[in-house]
Amino acid sequence: MAKTIDVYGSELVEDYAKVIRDFGLEVFDPSIFPEPNRIMRRGEVFAGRGLKIIADCIKNKKPFYVLSGIMPTGDKLHFGSKLVVEQISYFQKHGAKAYILVADLEAMASRGVTLEQAKQRALDFHIPAYIALGLDPKKTIFYFQSENKDVVHLAYEFAKKITLNEFKGIYGSADPGRILSAVTQVGDMVYPQLEERMPGIIPVGIDQDPHIRLARDVIRRVKDKKLFPISSIYHKFTPSLDGSIKMSKSKPESCIELPEDVKSVSKKIKRALTGGRDTVDEQKKLGGIPENCMIFELYHQHILEDDADLDKVYTQCKKGILLCGQDKIDACERMTKFMEDFVKKIEKARKIVPKLNFVRF
Amino acid sequence: MAKTIDVYGSELVEDYAKVIRDFGLEVFDPSIFPEPNRIMRRGEVFAGRGLKIIADCIKNKKPFYVLSGIMPTGDKLHFGSKLVVEQISYFQKHGAKAYILVADLEAMASRGVTLEQAKQRALDFHIPAYIALGLDPKKTIFYFQSENKDVVHLAYEFAKKITLNEFKGIYGSADPGRILSAVTQVGDMVYPQLEERMPGIIPVGIDQDPHIRLARDVIRRVKDKKLFPISSIYHKFTPSLDGSIKMSKSKPESCIELPEDVKSVSKKIKRALTGGRDTVDEQKKLGGIPENCMIFELYHQHILEDDADLDKVYTQCKKGILLCGQDKIDACERMTKFMEDFVKKIEKARKIVPKLNFVRF
Repeated sequence: MAKTIDVYGSELVEDYAKVIRDFGLEVFDPSIFPEPNRIMRRGEVFAGRGLKIIADCIKNKKPFYVLSGIMPTGDKLHFGSKLVVEQISYFQKHGAKAYILVADLEAMASRGVTLEQAKQRALDFHIPAYIALGLDPKKTIFYFQSENKDVVHLAYEFAKKITLNEFKGIYGSADPGRILSAVTQVGDMVYPQLEERMPGIIPVGIDQDPHIRLARDVIRRVKDKKLFPISSIYHKFTPSLDGSIKMSKSKPESCIELPEDVKSVSKKIKRALTGGRDTVDEQKKLGGIPENCMIFELYHQHILEDDADLDKVYTQCKKGILLCGQDKIDACERMTKFMEDFVKKIEKARKIVPKLNFVRF
Repeated sequence: MAKTIDVYGSELVEDYAKVIRDFGLEVFDPSIFPEPNRIMRRGEVFAGRGLKIIADCIKNKKPFYVLSGIMPTGDKLHFGSKLVVEQISYFQKHGAKAYILVADLEAMASRGVTLEQAKQRALDFHIPAYIALGLDPKKTIFYFQSENKDVVHLAYEFAKKITLNEFKGIYGSADPGRILSAVTQVGDMVYPQLEERMPGIIPVGIDQDPHIRLARDVIRRVKDKKLFPISSIYHKFTPSLDGSIKMSKSKPESCIELPEDVKSVSKKIKRALTGGRDTVDEQKKLGGIPENCMIFELYHQHILEDDADLDKVYTQCKKGILLCGQDKIDACERMTKFMEDFVKKIEKARKIVPKLNFVRF
């Protein structure tokens, strides 16, 4: 029987290698893609499904798409969204047609947010934030689920292809709102293929794999549509500053939001778990343990774009030259710069939003 | 706990009085409505929910609506649809705005029919047949679910208001396609109130009561929308020609479809269960038992519009003057006339269809 990941809850994936085995994923090999990005190079991207078909599209300059959804609740992103946008941006640069949908119907069906609230939040914050994080709006097709008749029609069509028990097997639970959300997501994932028959890839955190499996199962069952199976590519969670595997709003003191006030960020960084020794003397003698350090994790996954800069931090820490105090001061500076830059880019991107083309019914 | 009626299966309601008690329905009193139609007068309409609010609308000439859905599968109606149309027609004549929707999304989600097939069938047959049965197309708003954005949005919104267990409690089962169908139906029932705040009534067979209950439950939960609870009015099943409580396609030899070839109809009528005695002599002496006669049921529910004609058949049977043989000959003639007339009216109505106005997204 397939294992269940709770996509709506907070269950953690303790061992990525085990996840790959349990869920039958492909191990991600960065050499299959040209010019792998930071997170591909550094093993933050660790697995996928159907990656070869996408690699072939890039290699042979054949059409393919990359797609992701915005859940327009709240007015913050998390670091996971940043990784998604960086992946979209990578595939855009390598020939993908990008689709960004606003999951307003899902927000209504599973979170009780009105369509109007969802629309306002997406236009005011989420879409500008995605652009700020590197999405190329000129090469992106945007739509609201509530305005995309084809997606809704696919959702109704696909509902017939899944039983309640399968649904429970995949998701663990099956509330009506969640069922509607899930079939609509499958509609989203497939929708670009109605426009043009081509493969597509979805970059996600591993906790989203149930949606991918559902989509792949449904696609197998609608043979007459001749759809390509959905490819997917998985990145690791951003660890919590206290060392647990996933940053989560449920522990706000260990979670940095995007954007977040720089003073608040600095306070959190100063309290973060590091790989320091018991005493300064000991650390100067033995060196630190960057593998255990949440600051280093942030650098590795997000903040230090240049591999040489990352290596330098690693080496100086190992040698006992860079101590935790200084490291945290540096991290606060870098995070401050990152946040200020991010907020400025959001402001700038807001001005582009009215010029974007949204697909409509 | 609420009892379950299987809306998708063939479970029969043996005792209408018991249904009224078990489901907490109002007993229908024909005197609350002006000029009650044939089936109201004759007790074929037997129960309802929220009938007074509709009676008041008629009395005070306040706006209200009557709504029904067409499930565009197959190319025949059954006698139940005929009763629904007659009820719609009644309320139209008494001031109701009528809404007829084509449940094409439901047909796709729960029957696997494509939207294109559903559309073609509805335009070619179901809508003309409804007009042939008495629907006034000039006073009717038609729409396809797949083309009505507001209905779809309501469906997603309402999904959040129902748990899976409630759904199972109402329907007995909860396949994803059926869940989508049910929340979409609730969207349909409520949709006219987005256009204009007014009460509405749905004429249905008692097997459709779960949908009504679901709609009423959901409406109670979306207080901020200030919706009127849905009223409903129930008619009896058309009995099978073999005497069982509901005519069903699963027993084709006892089921007359609309339309059906007149030769086939005559053959079925000749085999129908009647209230005749063991011998002709006995029947001439004791009289027949029209209460047990399926021909008389057809007359009572459908074919003899004039109460005086019905009385005459009843009395002559009771007196042993009208015997079963002659009765069946008369019935064949009347049914032949009815079917020929119906088919002609469908042909005529087909010409109107292209001129109808459909609500679109």
